[in-house]
Amino acid sequence: MSKETNQMHLGAFLFNVGHHVAAWRLPETEPERIMDAELYLQCAQIAERGKFDMLFLADTLAVFDRNGTQLKHNVAIRPEPITLLSYLSGVTSHIGLTATVSTTYHDPYNLAREFATLDHLSGGRAAWNVVTSSRNEEAANFSKDDHPEHNNRYERAREFVEAASKLWDSWEDDAIIGDREAGLFADSDKVHEIHHKGEFFAVKGPLNLPRSPQGRPVIIQAGSSETGKRLAAETAEVIFTAWQTLEEAQQFYRSVKSQLADFGRSEDSLKIMPGILPIIGSTEEEAKRKEAEIQELVLPEIGLAMLAGSLNVDLSGYPLDGPLPELPELTQINGNKSRFQLVADMARREGLTIRQLMYRVTGARGHRTYAGTPEQIADQLEEWFTNGAADGFNIMAPFLPGGLELFVEHVVPILQRRGLYRTEYTGSTLRDHLGLARPISRYSVSASI
Amino acid sequence: MSKETNQMHLGAFLFNVGHHVAAWRLPETEPERIMDAELYLQCAQIAERGKFDMLFLADTLAVFDRNGTQLKHNVAIRPEPITLLSYLSGVTSHIGLTATVSTTYHDPYNLAREFATLDHLSGGRAAWNVVTSSRNEEAANFSKDDHPEHNNRYERAREFVEAASKLWDSWEDDAIIGDREAGLFADSDKVHEIHHKGEFFAVKGPLNLPRSPQGRPVIIQAGSSETGKRLAAETAEVIFTAWQTLEEAQQFYRSVKSQLADFGRSEDSLKIMPGILPIIGSTEEEAKRKEAEIQELVLPEIGLAMLAGSLNVDLSGYPLDGPLPELPELTQINGNKSRFQLVADMARREGLTIRQLMYRVTGARGHRTYAGTPEQIADQLEEWFTNGAADGFNIMAPFLPGGLELFVEHVVPILQRRGLYRTEYTGSTLRDHLGLARPISRYSVSASI
Repeated sequence: MSKETNQMHLGAFLFNVGHHVAAWRLPETEPERIMDAELYLQCAQIAERGKFDMLFLADTLAVFDRNGTQLKHNVAIRPEPITLLSYLSGVTSHIGLTATVSTTYHDPYNLAREFATLDHLSGGRAAWNVVTSSRNEEAANFSKDDHPEHNNRYERAREFVEAASKLWDSWEDDAIIGDREAGLFADSDKVHEIHHKGEFFAVKGPLNLPRSPQGRPVIIQAGSSETGKRLAAETAEVIFTAWQTLEEAQQFYRSVKSQLADFGRSEDSLKIMPGILPIIGSTEEEAKRKEAEIQELVLPEIGLAMLAGSLNVDLSGYPLDGPLPELPELTQINGNKSRFQLVADMARREGLTIRQLMYRVTGARGHRTYAGTPEQIADQLEEWFTNGAADGFNIMAPFLPGGLELFVEHVVPILQRRGLYRTEYTGSTLRDHLGLARPISRYSVSASI
Repeated sequence: MSKETNQMHLGAFLFNVGHHVAAWRLPETEPERIMDAELYLQCAQIAERGKFDMLFLADTLAVFDRNGTQLKHNVAIRPEPITLLSYLSGVTSHIGLTATVSTTYHDPYNLAREFATLDHLSGGRAAWNVVTSSRNEEAANFSKDDHPEHNNRYERAREFVEAASKLWDSWEDDAIIGDREAGLFADSDKVHEIHHKGEFFAVKGPLNLPRSPQGRPVIIQAGSSETGKRLAAETAEVIFTAWQTLEEAQQFYRSVKSQLADFGRSEDSLKIMPGILPIIGSTEEEAKRKEAEIQELVLPEIGLAMLAGSLNVDLSGYPLDGPLPELPELTQINGNKSRFQLVADMARREGLTIRQLMYRVTGARGHRTYAGTPEQIADQLEEWFTNGAADGFNIMAPFLPGGLELFVEHVVPILQRRGLYRTEYTGSTLRDHLGLARPISRYSVSASI
């Protein structure tokens, strides 16, 4: 077993001034710096000091303001991820750079160029979190009356990844000759038109830039529905997922890993990284107190709107401290099916009131929250990692950059002492960090042997 | 008259390893570094040392390989400009960052986010060179059978700029409150849905990030056709243009500036910057010898293909040292009309052979080439600047980074001594450098007073 496979992988998920919806109300954060390059530089430097595999940036293509209060009471701001990560590529040296970009409202040629350029500039550190867009607010920003139906979005996503991958392969690794004397810059036999023709896209190619250090950016997916799992088993190299319990996470892990063989892939070729929001205290009591303090800063109008968004149900008429009303069937949900299921299950399993559920959703938006000492948090990560529930974790600091710094200062050293996590980067590309093979161009002679 | 208006503006146009098509065959260049971040860092640092207003990146959305030789004998590689400039934003401090992005194959919401993010991260240094895409090779990469017709492309461009500008204005400057105690992050009355509905786009808005340091990126245009000039007079803040003679440039300058009043704009609100490719020698003789040397490195198959591209005529059957054949009428050209006109005029005016014309087109792709001493080049720039032909120049170094370095080391100090050019940056944003006003959001109360 290689060193990479018995050590866990960590992503630093940057989001607003922290993942907790009330983070901006804490004295530890500076929400007015949300578009300030220095804020992100600081986060990136902390994560790189912690030897994280990658930075991770989510994205949305609209302000989601169902009841008019998100703008007022929340930080509804999203810097464009490719732009932000390209900036960070110049001021970091090792850490991977993952941008979420939607296949619903982008185009394969432009996207392939952006990620290939980022991969070149960063020396092989680019990753693409492939998502689909499901919200009416996003459709309305892209000249569409309504968002595409769920399966259609996934079909488009699959074809999008295929077309982009062909573009990334269109220059073979050794296509550039650079012979000044002979006037031969490239071997045109090693640069391929891709002639992609599908249901959604027709792309002739080739890409107008050469193959990048990683061959292709690392492909990440986040969907956990059955369709999403199948697509991930076919095309993803990392899955970012959300589970509340060890058992659920193990079940998901086994289910996805067992499907890899259907696509001729080894279990090592896909890393599963659940998200976790760690609230760190020097004692368990202090951690719980911190958790309660930040929860008290959640404004009910925001919490209810977020919960309503996950469940597709208007909860404004129900008492906060009473139970959830009847929920729609999964088949009626045309948004994020897996998030709906997760939140509905959590409410049923633990018999949560609306207020309790609201606190859970606003904390980590469906991801697991854990409040404890650095040792306890390390124990949790170790338990999931060593019991077939995770290959690593996406760390969702409740507030930034401070919460990430606490994790790097206090949890990372424990994981390192236990031999569960790297003490130094051993490679230079994100594929190196993750122990993922560099793909061969499908057009090269060696690919067809 | 403010200091800015009696000093010229300079852009450093980065392109391949130099603007001359044979640059990559010179011993001074390293074409194998074309995707290397360090190459661009080096160029940016030289330009910033020279107090340039901005870096300028062109773009195309395909490999243009009409006869199969471009890939083989040319550097047909284009890093994606937004990605590259975002990287450079982190490793430079003052210089403006201009990305060319096509309105034909992008979308207003994505583009508005990218430029707003770049403007935030760079502290107000973003500019957008608005172009349309006219080539079949590009259409074939974007699921289109054929490129849109000329006027249709311009109508789409106008509406695109309008929709993007509304998005940039959608957050008023003082929309963010950041009151932790009251739980008020933004004043939602100062964040506006734009409800854009036009022939090409329907965009609801608002943008999901706040107004950027410059309000909007600086808007640059390059078209010099009558339609292009009209669009520029309406919407551009800088025009990048190509003229061979003082008289032509003066005529264009007067024509555009006189149309500004039709749109309620002052003459100062638009800067006209012709391109120039300077070949610098310590004597005139040395400069001319350098010019001849680089011209001899042009491969005829590349030169003829480029000339054919500008003229929409296949020249392969004609003798290299003979005259041009009959050309099509301007109305039959559905590509770059102004470039066709410029090249055709140049051939007629100077009675050039096909080979001579080929050298002119391959040197600066229709822009002016001037070989001389630093003093002579400074004289040329001064002559155009002081005689109403230019507000500044886009400097197209024949080879990079060396050719840019020669200009900064030898020509810039002369311009500075003559008081024609800044010796230090006096502001922090690109609008500051160019002496352009920061636009007020159309949605703010003060805009409607």
